[in-house]
Order: sequence, then structure tokens, then C-alpha cells
Amino acid sequence: MIAHTSLSGFPEWLPAGRIVENHVLDTLRRVFELHGFAAVETRAVEPLRDLLRKGETSKEVYVLSRLQAEAGQDQKETDRLGLHFDLTVPFARYVVENAGKLAFPFRRYQMQKVWRGERPQDGRFREFLQADIDVVGNGELAFHHEVEVPLVMASALQALGIGAFEIRVNNRKAAQGAYQALGIDDVEATLRAVDKLAKIGADGVRAELLELGNSPQAADAALALAKIRGTADIGAQVHAVLSQAGAQPNDLLAAGLAELSALLTQAAQQFPGVVVADLSVARGLDYYTGSVYETFLVGHESLGSICSGGRYDSLAVAGKRTFPGVGMSIGVSRLVSRLLAADLVTVSRSVPSAVLVAVTEEESRNESQQVAASLRARGIACEVSPTAAKFGKQIKYADRRGIPYVWFPATQEVKDIRSGEQVPADPAQWCPPAGDWWPTVNAVEK
Amino acid sequence: MIAHTSLSGFPEWLPAGRIVENHVLDTLRRVFELHGFAAVETRAVEPLRDLLRKGETSKEVYVLSRLQAEAGQDQKETDRLGLHFDLTVPFARYVVENAGKLAFPFRRYQMQKVWRGERPQDGRFREFLQADIDVVGNGELAFHHEVEVPLVMASALQALGIGAFEIRVNNRKAAQGAYQALGIDDVEATLRAVDKLAKIGADGVRAELLELGNSPQAADAALALAKIRGTADIGAQVHAVLSQAGAQPNDLLAAGLAELSALLTQAAQQFPGVVVADLSVARGLDYYTGSVYETFLVGHESLGSICSGGRYDSLAVAGKRTFPGVGMSIGVSRLVSRLLAADLVTVSRSVPSAVLVAVTEEESRNESQQVAASLRARGIACEVSPTAAKFGKQIKYADRRGIPYVWFPATQEVKDIRSGEQVPADPAQWCPPAGDWWPTVNAVEK
Repeated sequence: MIAHTSLSGFPEWLPAGRIVENHVLDTLRRVFELHGFAAVETRAVEPLRDLLRKGETSKEVYVLSRLQAEAGQDQKETDRLGLHFDLTVPFARYVVENAGKLAFPFRRYQMQKVWRGERPQDGRFREFLQADIDVVGNGELAFHHEVEVPLVMASALQALGIGAFEIRVNNRKAAQGAYQALGIDDVEATLRAVDKLAKIGADGVRAELLELGNSPQAADAALALAKIRGTADIGAQVHAVLSQAGAQPNDLLAAGLAELSALLTQAAQQFPGVVVADLSVARGLDYYTGSVYETFLVGHESLGSICSGGRYDSLAVAGKRTFPGVGMSIGVSRLVSRLLAADLVTVSRSVPSAVLVAVTEEESRNESQQVAASLRARGIACEVSPTAAKFGKQIKYADRRGIPYVWFPATQEVKDIRSGEQVPADPAQWCPPAGDWWPTVNAVEK
Repeated sequence: MIAHTSLSGFPEWLPAGRIVENHVLDTLRRVFELHGFAAVETRAVEPLRDLLRKGETSKEVYVLSRLQAEAGQDQKETDRLGLHFDLTVPFARYVVENAGKLAFPFRRYQMQKVWRGERPQDGRFREFLQADIDVVGNGELAFHHEVEVPLVMASALQALGIGAFEIRVNNRKAAQGAYQALGIDDVEATLRAVDKLAKIGADGVRAELLELGNSPQAADAALALAKIRGTADIGAQVHAVLSQAGAQPNDLLAAGLAELSALLTQAAQQFPGVVVADLSVARGLDYYTGSVYETFLVGHESLGSICSGGRYDSLAVAGKRTFPGVGMSIGVSRLVSRLLAADLVTVSRSVPSAVLVAVTEEESRNESQQVAASLRARGIACEVSPTAAKFGKQIKYADRRGIPYVWFPATQEVKDIRSGEQVPADPAQWCPPAGDWWPTVNAVEK
């Protein structure tokens, strides 16, 4: 289902693979809309100066130039346009530009391609689809949206039917409060060190924490915190670590633990076992300000997080107005690519058509077209045979595409070419069984 | 419904406008799939050498470069990547690369953004959505697909419900045959001259035709041909013009007129009055080889053609294999932009939610969420009020978004806030009327 790739990093799918991708997008869209998220699409380009605000991503930006730009008309570097590398920067700009016309809190989803000028040899995607949801407030945004957003994503991932997943959550206030209690000054550097736990191991992280000037006791406590997991209240475990290190809890820690606890309690009701506190989740905690989320497909943890996000206190700033928000983003291409490459799904056919209407002889093509029109009027996808070849050849044409039914207009009969059963049928009445109506995508039990 | 535009040529819509755009895309997709066209999506970029093959469009290409490309790693000009300016070049490449895995004739639709580096002051779109269908054969492709493709587009445009439209058709063989009969040598230059009829008028075209070395009699005949219109056989009119000029018909003309006649006859059955022969349609006849199509919205002819295409004998060539095809392309952004700017459509609401579930007090938010979950499980889009403010404020929140119903969980009642009617309701049973289920897009009678 994966097409030939003539440019590394730019994935394309054969029609069957695109059916899988559309199944994913349609399912996500339906779940997002059922939860009241409105569709937004932004342009593919942003001024380079806006893309470069986050310094660390500047190296990944594709910059545009017009092939025939007149000499002497070269724009200033920062006036140039680049392709967006995520959907957050463009959405923030959209919110500021249209703030007067949007109703807050504003709930939107956005499913678009993004581009990153990665080195080809990295084997990473340079063009990929993301699906984001965000709830954005004007000046303020209630905490309960931090509970809502991961549960919407849980509904969406469940609806995809691609197997078990785990949403790992942490909270910036809890982490910062705990580190401050331990006398750790450079919270952000510590978060970055802890984030490397899976990569460089406990000893490596401990060495980094010591290098940052932390005491051995604080470093050990930070590592102990990073090992805490739980689907229920994890406050007792955190307090035990702090107590062991002789540290006093503070208000920030209490606030963060209360938020984590509220999130876990609500999640356990709706999605038992799916949302798990994991205090080693530190990625993004340097810019998120409350809850932070990562999502792993069980059995495919090597894929990395397929859906991440968190709470930020200012998505955008316009004069005195700030727009706090909470959002998550699904890496659709990464997910679809794995589904296809690992044969985790099957597709019932590679074309929309449920029926091939045979052509008895070229002169009677019109008769076949009338059958097709009648079927289409009732929502049954079909195509008319391109040739009036022998019926055996026309059946073979259908078979190669996975089209399950062939209609013979001369006798008004329809044949299920899988079973060979052929029955009389009225084009104004006949319907395929529900499972044959459109191509279906089914998870493979492994 | 049109968003603030901070970059000219890059249109964006507010959520209500995006509902219109999605309505157009969903409708097109459904019609294309009912006719057995499979979805394909290609990457946004192509090697510059492939984009530059059509020399005339080279000036419009956006070229990419990586911001941090290492010095000395600059690629050769032709190895560089550019954004595609249409969906035909990438589709031709896709067909060649995957020919072994596709079943021919291959029917595909493709709805994607394209980019053209137009000068901003032209006021043209630099990023816009196109929706293409093509039927592509391997080595050969039967003529009946030239009848099929414009009729699929007629079905699609009719399904959009945006008013009357006219598909104007011509045929390269008929035009070339007639010109050759008149002793006109440079057929392509003549076609380009005739194409300017609307712009520079008959006198201007006549002057150009004379400059090309044509006789006054041939120039007058070519102009007379360009005035021929008709929804039935137009052969008699063509022969009358030739006879007047003392020219003898030839086989190429006969073949072209027969194709035109077959197209008009079939079209008149399915879409009376919609498909019109117009021998002044010359755009693209220099590269199309059979039928050629343009489509105008009646009353909005100034918009130009919203759906064009034709028959080409080699979409792509791979070694000894050629892939003939026939296709048409809808300019979706141009169409949506006009629908929005001229207020030709209304949208019933700007959010998906049919229901706002009120929150009695923050402590009972869970109760509201359970109502919402029950409604969503039955496919009813809803959101839970962001605050437990006074009910009047919560109703105002719904009103601002056009959400028609507010649900009160404490009393299990639902209020239609347009009529004020409030009735008891069971979240496991209640349904909105069909027209309120999702936002609807309606054409405005003018």
C-alpha cells in the first residue's frame, strides 16, 4: 500500500494506502466535530521571522523563493516566506489576526501537511500530516480543558480501532514544585536531563544532574521521582520521595499534584487504564505550563509518541491580550506509515466501486450507464466497464481491483464474483450488504 | 466568512467559510467516489527539472531551500525542489513510478493545494485548492471516457447546488481539420489568436490571423467558425462556413465533428442544456489532442472557467510506454472565494455542535459530561459549557456560536434557543430535527 518513493522523506501511498489514511482522517474529523471542534485550515507558509521565533527549530525550515524573482528585488531575510513546520505557529497567528471574529474559548481542529528540512539521511519524514486540536481562551482558560483534551484524543484513538494505547501525563507545576523543594535551581535544565532517561539511562542522567550543580541527594531524588507511575493519585509516592530527601512540599507542588489527580480520576472513569501519570515525561515541560501529554501505541513504543501536547499560558500575545490554550497533535503520517509498513490493517478493496457494470457490446454502453446512474442515485459507487470485452475479461477487470460485484444489464443480473453467486436484480432496488458498500479498513489481530 | 489576510494571495477562511469549503470538498469527493474514482495524494514538491519541462510556467514556481543548508552542499539548480503548480505534473510522475502497481485504465481524483509564485500585485491566489479527476490508460484509452469525464463534473457541480453552469466544449481534431481545410498552416498560432477573441475582439483577432500569413478569406472563415455554438450537432454549421470559403472537408474534421456530436448527444440526455459546443474555446488546444472543456457559472462569467480540462495522448511517457488520459480540474479556492465574497451561500452555524450542555455548578460538571457522552454516542455533536455561569450567560454563549439547543442536566430539559421552546428530554433518546444535526450550507436565491 506504500508507493514507490523517488524522494526520500516525502511519503506517498498507493490508492489502498490512501484509503487507510482517509479512514484515519475521517474518523478523527468525526470525533473532533462530535466534541464541538471547528475546522480551521491555514496557509502553508509563514513569514520567516515568525517561524524563527522558536530558535531551536530554525534549522528545519524550508525557505521559499520565486524562481524568476527579479534581481534587486530580493527581500530582507526575515520578510521571506517559509513552509510551516507545525500547526501551532500558524494557528497562533490566525487567532491573533481574527481574535475579533472568533468566539472564545475557541475550539478548533486542524489537519494539514507540515514540512521540516531534515537531512535526508536521517530517514525522517520531511513532509507529513498532523492533526491538532486546541482549546484557546481569551485571557483565561479553565483547568477542566486540560482534562478534556486528552480524553477527546483517547476517544479519537479508540475510534481508529488500531489497538491499545497509553497516554502518559505529567504536570509542569508538580515537577517544578518538587524540584524547588529539593533545592534544584535550574528547573528547565533538570527537565531536559531527566527527559534523556530512556536514551542515556539513570547513570547518565545522574551525571548530568550533578554537573548542573545539584547535590547527590537532589539528583537521586529527581531520578526517584522520574520512576513514579500510576493511574490513581500519585501524591503519596511523590511525598515519600521528598520526605526521604528531607525536603518540604510547597504550594506549587500541591497545585500540580491536585491537577494531576483530577485528570487521572476523570480519565479512569471514561478510559480505565489508558491515562497514566509518568513523572519522567519531561519533553515540552520547558515551554508547557501545566499538564503535558505523550501517547504510545502498546507494542509499538519504538515509534515514539504518536500524540503529544500540553497546556501553555500564552499561545499568542497581541498587545495586552494573551491567549492561553491546551492542545494535542497526532502525527498522522507516522501512524499511517506504521499501520501500512507493519501490515496492521487490511483494506477490502483499492477502489471505491462496489459494482462494475458490464458492457454487452459497445453499442449498448448507454444501457450500462443507465444502470450505473440508478445505482449511484442510491449511493452505490460503481463504474462502467471500459471495454465490451468478453464477460470473463470484464470479471477479471473487477477482480484485479477488488470490486465485489459485476452487473449484467442485458439480463439484469448481478454476480458476487467472490462466491460466484449470480441473481436477478433491479437497479432501482438492489443493495450490497453493508460491509461491501464502501472499502473497509480492518485491524489485523496479531 | 473570509479571514483577515495578512499575506496577499494566501486566502484563509473563518470557521464558517471553512464549513463551506468542506461542504464543497465533501460533495466533490462523494460524487467522484460514486463514479469509481480512487483518491490519490502526492507530495507538495517535485524536482525543479520536472516542474520546468513546461517552459512557460517556470516563472511561477516557488523554489525551496533549507535555511541551514551547509555551505558547499548547494545542489545543482535542476536537482532543487519546487512546490507543484498543478496536480497534473505530480500525477504523471506518480503514474510512471507506480505503473506496475496500478490497474489501467486508472481513475483517480486528487484534491490538494497548489502554489504559484505570482506577483502579489496581480491579486491572484498564490496558494489555492484544486480538485482534479483523470482517467488514464496504458498505451490506449477509449473515446467514451471523453464523454464520461465532463458528465462526472456536471454531476459534481450540480450536487454542489450553487446555481446554473455551462460546460463549453471544443475538439482539437475538429479545429485542426477545419483550419487545414482552409489552408491555414500554423494551427497552434491560429488557436492562440482565436483564444483572444473575448479579450481583443474580432478585429484584433482578424489582424493577428492576417499577420500569421493567412488569407483574408481564411481569417474570416476562422472567425466565423469561432462564432459557432450549439447543444446539438454543429456539423452543418461548420460545413456551411467551409463551403462558403470554398474549402473541402477532410477526414480529421469528420473525426473531430463525430466526437463532438457523440459528446453533445450523450450530454443532452443526462444534462439538457448544460454542455454546449463552442468553437471559440481554444485554450489548451495547443496541447490537448481531442476534446477540450471549460466551465462557467452562469451570471459569474467574469470569474473565468471554474473547471477545465481535456484529452491528452501522453500524460506521461516511460520508455516505450505512453499513458493517454482525459481529465478536468476544478479551481476550488476560486469557487469558494466567490461563494463567500458574493454571499451566494449561507451557513446555519459556525461550529459543529448542535447542543450546548449547560453546567449547573462547577461541582456537577461530570453530570453534564455524561449527557454529552450520551448524545455523542448517537452521533449528535455537542460541547459542555466552559463555565457554570448563570444560565442566561450560557445561553448567550450558545447563541453567539449559532448552537441551536441548550441542555439543562439538572432538570433534563432541552431548549431550542431560537423559538424559546423548552421540553423534557432523555439524553439516550432525544434527536434534533434532521436540518439541525450538522451545520448546513444553503445557496442564496438571487
